[in-house]
Amino acid sequence: MRSQSIRIVSFLFFALAGWLGLLQADPVSPLNGTADPDGNTVWYDGARLGVEGRGWTETESFYDRLPAKARGTVRDSVWKLSHATAGMCIRFVTDAPTIQVRWIITGLYSLSTMPKTACSGVDLYCREAAGKWTFVGTGEPTGITNTALFSVGASKELMLYLPLYTGVKSVEIGIPKGRTISKPAPRAKPIIFYGTSITQGACASRPGMVYTAIVGRRLDRPVINLGFSANGTGDTELADLMGEIDASIYIVDCAANMKSNGPYAPEKQAPLFVTRLRKLRPATPILLVQGADRFDRPSEGGAWRSVYEQLKKQGMTGLFFLPNKGMYGDDGEATGSDGHPSDLGMMREAAVYIRALPSMLKTTGRSR
Amino acid sequence: MRSQSIRIVSFLFFALAGWLGLLQADPVSPLNGTADPDGNTVWYDGARLGVEGRGWTETESFYDRLPAKARGTVRDSVWKLSHATAGMCIRFVTDAPTIQVRWIITGLYSLSTMPKTACSGVDLYCREAAGKWTFVGTGEPTGITNTALFSVGASKELMLYLPLYTGVKSVEIGIPKGRTISKPAPRAKPIIFYGTSITQGACASRPGMVYTAIVGRRLDRPVINLGFSANGTGDTELADLMGEIDASIYIVDCAANMKSNGPYAPEKQAPLFVTRLRKLRPATPILLVQGADRFDRPSEGGAWRSVYEQLKKQGMTGLFFLPNKGMYGDDGEATGSDGHPSDLGMMREAAVYIRALPSMLKTTGRSR
Repeated sequence: MRSQSIRIVSFLFFALAGWLGLLQADPVSPLNGTADPDGNTVWYDGARLGVEGRGWTETESFYDRLPAKARGTVRDSVWKLSHATAGMCIRFVTDAPTIQVRWIITGLYSLSTMPKTACSGVDLYCREAAGKWTFVGTGEPTGITNTALFSVGASKELMLYLPLYTGVKSVEIGIPKGRTISKPAPRAKPIIFYGTSITQGACASRPGMVYTAIVGRRLDRPVINLGFSANGTGDTELADLMGEIDASIYIVDCAANMKSNGPYAPEKQAPLFVTRLRKLRPATPILLVQGADRFDRPSEGGAWRSVYEQLKKQGMTGLFFLPNKGMYGDDGEATGSDGHPSDLGMMREAAVYIRALPSMLKTTGRSR
Repeated sequence: MRSQSIRIVSFLFFALAGWLGLLQADPVSPLNGTADPDGNTVWYDGARLGVEGRGWTETESFYDRLPAKARGTVRDSVWKLSHATAGMCIRFVTDAPTIQVRWIITGLYSLSTMPKTACSGVDLYCREAAGKWTFVGTGEPTGITNTALFSVGASKELMLYLPLYTGVKSVEIGIPKGRTISKPAPRAKPIIFYGTSITQGACASRPGMVYTAIVGRRLDRPVINLGFSANGTGDTELADLMGEIDASIYIVDCAANMKSNGPYAPEKQAPLFVTRLRKLRPATPILLVQGADRFDRPSEGGAWRSVYEQLKKQGMTGLFFLPNKGMYGDDGEATGSDGHPSDLGMMREAAVYIRALPSMLKTTGRSR
C-alpha cells in the first residue's frame, strides 16, 4: 500500500517535473529550420538545441570537447582526442512522431574490438512518462554523411548521443513540416568524468552505453565526458581547464593510464592534479576512483587510496574515494582481453557509480 | 560451516574430475607437430584436438557446421552460413605456460554493429582449479592468416572458441618445444541450439560471449550451435540433420525468424519441424523457446506456447517450453536497435537458459 502511494507520488512528481520542463522548453522558430527538398521535412541545427557534454562555448569546431585555447596547452594527443564527441548529447523536445537525424562525421571509424555503431554512430533515447530514459535506437553510420530515421511515438523529450571515437561536423534533426521542436531548460550542474579510453567509451557497442552516459541517464544529470584514450594521465593543464566548469562533482577515473610503475605514477601526479583542481574549486566534491580491474581483484584501493588518504590527512575536504569492487563483476566476462569493458562491463561499472554518487552529490565541500 | 564443507567437497570433486580428465587425455605425438622456423615452437593441428560444436565428420571443409551431403538439401543461404564456425571450439590439455594460436579464415569480416574480434577472432578460456571456465583472452584478427599469443600460467585444460561470422580453413596451436599437448576425453552429449542470427552470435563482442557458449561453460557441456543468421526458419531438412546427432537436448530458438505474419509462421512450420525431429529422436528432450524480446514484454508465450500446448495435447512427450521473461532484462539496454543482444543481453539470455536447462537435461522422454 505504502509502496503504491510512493509510486503514485513519484509518478505525479515526474509528470509535474516533465510538464514544467516542457513549459520551460524554448521553441525554435521554424524560420531557423531548413526545408528539405522532399517538401515534408524541416531540418534544425542540433547546435541550437540542448547540447550537453560540451564544457566550453569557445571551441574551434562546435562539437569539440576542449576549448580553442587548449590547443598547444594540452598535449597533442589529448587535443586530437578532444575532437571526438564522446559522451556528448543533444536534448530536445518535440511533438513529432518520427524524427530524422543527419550527422556528418570527420571520419568513419571502428576498432577491431569496437563496432562502427559505437565509434561513429548516434544513439537516441526518450524520456518515458515516469521520467525514465529509454533506448529508442541507434543510427548506423555508413559514410561521412549519415541519416537515420526513428519512430518516437508519443515521446516528448529526446536525447541523442553523439559518436564516441570520431568527430562531428554537424548534427541536424529533421521533423515533419508543421511539427515543433524546442530546446529544453538546462538541467543541474554537470558531473565531469576525467579518464582514459574506458571513460571515452571503449568498448561499448553503441554511444549510449559508455558508463558515463548510463550514469547520466539513471541519475538524470548532464555529464561532461573528458575521457582521452591512453591519455587520462592527470595532466595539470586538464585540472586548470576542468576548474573553469562549474560542476556538481569532478571524477578522476585515470587508474588505467596512471600506473605506479609508469611515467604518470598516481603517487606523484595525482596529488598535483587534485591540489590544482581543489584550489580552483574549493567547495566542489572530487572523487578519486581506484579503476576497474579486469579480474575484479578488489584490493585495499592501491595507490589511489593512498593518494586519497594522504590528501585528506593534509586537510583537503570534499574528497571521496571509490574502490573498484564489483565494477567488472567476479565472472571475468565483462571485458575484452585488453581490459576494455563490453556493454556488460559498462553496465556493471555504471551500477557502482550510481550507488555511490548520490550521497557525494548531496555534500558540498564536506569530507566524508 | 556447512557451506564450507560443500565447498571443500565440491573442490575435491572437481579436482578429481579434472585429474581423471587429464589422465584420460590422449597425448598427441610430437611427430604430429610441425617445428616452427624459430626453433622453439611446435605447431599442432587443431583438428587433431578436442573439436566441439562440429556435428558431422563428413564435411566439405573440416570446420563446416553442416555435412557435405547438406549441400543442395538445405537452402543456399543456410549452406553458406554453415561455413561460419559459430559456437565451435577446440578443447585441449597442455603443460605449456604460453600458447600461440594461428588461425586462417575465409574472410576478415565485421558488421557495423559487431566488431572484428567477434566475427573473425578467437577466444581462449581456461579451466580453473575449481572447475570453472575463465576467460583468458581474445585473438584479434588482422587479415586472413592470424596469430595470437596467450599466457596461460598453470592452466591445464584450455578451450578456444572459433569465429562467429566467418569460416576457418585451419587452426594450429603452437607450444614451446618439449611441452606436451593432449586431446581430452569427450564430454557428455551435446546441447544443440537451432536458431537465428542471435544464436549465431550477433552481436557479441567476442566469440566466447554468444549465449550458447556461456551456457556451455556454465553447465560444462559441449554445445552445437546451429544458428543461421536470418535463416532460423524451422526447415524440416534441418530437423532431419539434427536428428542424426545424439544430443542431450534439442533447443529450437527460432522466434526471431519465424513470425506469425511471415512466410515461416510458427503455427504452421514449428509443428512440422518438431514432429519430424521427435520421430527421429523419440526420447530426447526438445525445448521450444519463446524468443527474447528487445522490450522484455513477457506475454503468455505467444505463438510458440500455443505450438507447445498443441503438441503436448497430441501426446508428444519430452517437450518443454521456455518463456522469454528476463532474457533481455527490463531496462531496454541489452540490445542494439535491431534487437541483437550485446554481451549484456547475451549474459542475461544465458542466465535464463542456465536456470532452466538442468531439470530438462535430467529428464529423458518425460513431459513436464
